[in-house]
Amino acid sequence: MENFVFHNPTRIIFGKDSQQQVGRELKGYRKVLLHYGTGSIKRCGLYDQVVNSLQEAGIEWVELGGAKPNPLLSLVYEGIRLCRENGVELVLAVGGGSTIDSAKAIALGACYTGDVWDFYTEKAKPAAALPVGVILTIAAAGSESSDSSVLTREEGLLKRPCSSSLVFPKFAILNPELTYTLPSYQTACGIADICAHILERYFTRSPNVDLTDRLCEASLKTLIAFAPRVMAAPADYEARAEIMWTGAIAHNNLLGTGRTADWGSHMIEHEMSGIYDVAHGAGLAVVFPAWMKYVYREDIQRFVQYAVRVWGVDYSFGEPERIALEGIARTKEFFSSIGLPVSLKEMNISGDRLEEMAQKATKDGSLGNFKKLDQADVLNILKLAS
Amino acid sequence: MENFVFHNPTRIIFGKDSQQQVGRELKGYRKVLLHYGTGSIKRCGLYDQVVNSLQEAGIEWVELGGAKPNPLLSLVYEGIRLCRENGVELVLAVGGGSTIDSAKAIALGACYTGDVWDFYTEKAKPAAALPVGVILTIAAAGSESSDSSVLTREEGLLKRPCSSSLVFPKFAILNPELTYTLPSYQTACGIADICAHILERYFTRSPNVDLTDRLCEASLKTLIAFAPRVMAAPADYEARAEIMWTGAIAHNNLLGTGRTADWGSHMIEHEMSGIYDVAHGAGLAVVFPAWMKYVYREDIQRFVQYAVRVWGVDYSFGEPERIALEGIARTKEFFSSIGLPVSLKEMNISGDRLEEMAQKATKDGSLGNFKKLDQADVLNILKLAS
Repeated sequence: MENFVFHNPTRIIFGKDSQQQVGRELKGYRKVLLHYGTGSIKRCGLYDQVVNSLQEAGIEWVELGGAKPNPLLSLVYEGIRLCRENGVELVLAVGGGSTIDSAKAIALGACYTGDVWDFYTEKAKPAAALPVGVILTIAAAGSESSDSSVLTREEGLLKRPCSSSLVFPKFAILNPELTYTLPSYQTACGIADICAHILERYFTRSPNVDLTDRLCEASLKTLIAFAPRVMAAPADYEARAEIMWTGAIAHNNLLGTGRTADWGSHMIEHEMSGIYDVAHGAGLAVVFPAWMKYVYREDIQRFVQYAVRVWGVDYSFGEPERIALEGIARTKEFFSSIGLPVSLKEMNISGDRLEEMAQKATKDGSLGNFKKLDQADVLNILKLAS
Repeated sequence: MENFVFHNPTRIIFGKDSQQQVGRELKGYRKVLLHYGTGSIKRCGLYDQVVNSLQEAGIEWVELGGAKPNPLLSLVYEGIRLCRENGVELVLAVGGGSTIDSAKAIALGACYTGDVWDFYTEKAKPAAALPVGVILTIAAAGSESSDSSVLTREEGLLKRPCSSSLVFPKFAILNPELTYTLPSYQTACGIADICAHILERYFTRSPNVDLTDRLCEASLKTLIAFAPRVMAAPADYEARAEIMWTGAIAHNNLLGTGRTADWGSHMIEHEMSGIYDVAHGAGLAVVFPAWMKYVYREDIQRFVQYAVRVWGVDYSFGEPERIALEGIARTKEFFSSIGLPVSLKEMNISGDRLEEMAQKATKDGSLGNFKKLDQADVLNILKLAS
């Protein structure tokens, strides 16, 4: 087990009607930026509930809608301007990972005199941020209790991550009911994203990580058990609740303690969704099985454990190759069974920009840790994903 | 799944040599109370390392040793006096659960004009506390990242818990190496305590708690796998590390989210160790299997799941009773296999004060939630434990 620091100060308020508490959670703040997406929170009535709760608590707000999947730097600049002009004290994100990531970037930028993009290119390190609060509307990104944010700069379609303990949300309100009305494709993409957050941590070369292995497996098994239930019955509270809580735990970094995670598949997918604007979760469903096939021989016994413990593949000591591949095949079938694409072709991505993606993904050096991937490796994985 | 709030702000610094960082973690504080136990930290050199780190960081301290298993109110009063007289800003506990619980009580009392015991009898609710820092020397109580503290008042031998988010340690330094020199009986008692913290949460009547069930099972399986290793080889770093991290997770309340925990066995054990001054973990090893035998029929399928998933008992649909009892028997064998008593007799506790314990345990009402236990139930459990 590797030495580690684990710290997750986000206060989770989980359950039915929990969004009604937002005003109470914001006690002590005078003015917030209410940040949301492209309007679904207005259609489903959530916007009114939030605004009522703010009014009751005597909290003023300014608004910024328009956060989209793969959140854009231009909107972040707009949010920073609003915060400065209005003396905003906290950024309240009401939405999914994109809105939260956008809110985190705004919170960082509002306290920085330079260009907030500096934090995403590692030109500068954040020293201060406004606090962020969250009302989550999709179980997926885990940004509701993570210290990270991913942003896309339109110029050059660059999608880059930034991590800082300053952007752990102060609180995150998780009501599974708010996810009932999601289109089923978005639900499925969220499940793939959660799954990928666990798998990125699970596939490690760090030895002696039994507890976190088992915690990862527990989380994956829950996801696999409840995914078909929410796909079949979108208003199944208990299934939505299991998936929503798994989504937060998958990315609050408990599952990464004491081990070096991989993150190669995420980096490859970022290039894909940076160029093609595909849903992050769908991109991961395409990349991850291909990555697995490309790397499993690096530590076949870990893939055997994965197949046996997560997918219940019958253990047989003489057949590690077959068992490892069976685990990979089941992963792919799982994504497919919930309606996700599992190849570039199924996403209508032709092969003509694979080299560009491979080049962009590796321009700052190799990717991943389970196996260090250079440009040729990434190209091979993209070809396997074709 | 029940609505819940989950919040655990303790910063965990885990790994080899991590105690050397204590001075750095205390940056910004001028004076701390260094609180420890009966001297083992001096014998093993930890005291010198801590004091050196404080000196290097320019932090002054006053000292209070003498914290004992089942920490005493009288020592807490002494600590409160020291804090007040010396302008102490933080209480640094170097030790196990007893020292940490004692430190938490001191931290609460130092900010309260009344008697700190009021918080343990629910006469008053804490409104402020000094921050607490921890260097952990035994994997057991989980107090290093919990919001609770248990204290014993000498008068009447009353052992009572107090919970307040104010006493979550600000940081907890966990170095598995510091546990190498523990007597093997204390190591085993710690393992039983960790196990009990998980079982108290696992045995719930709350439906639809699949993720937390699986996380509990993952933690229990890790404990069961590594307990024999640390008993056989006390300086096995990896095994000590697995158990130490499991110990923190077992009681940081992640495993209790969305479910009502039981805590009946803990309450019964508190009366036992209040009177007899037995190690808490040993008391739990005696009480828990007896409690299980007494209550399993309340929800036999949960006990079947426990036996099958945790202990690998072969599932057979027609025999729930046999399977449930097999899981209970294995639990008892496990405690016995690591050198713990599993009956009152083995702890040299005769039957003559069982009624007194049952009466004291239930004087404020029934105990537990899996099955509500009245005085007669507690007496029956104590008799089963005889």
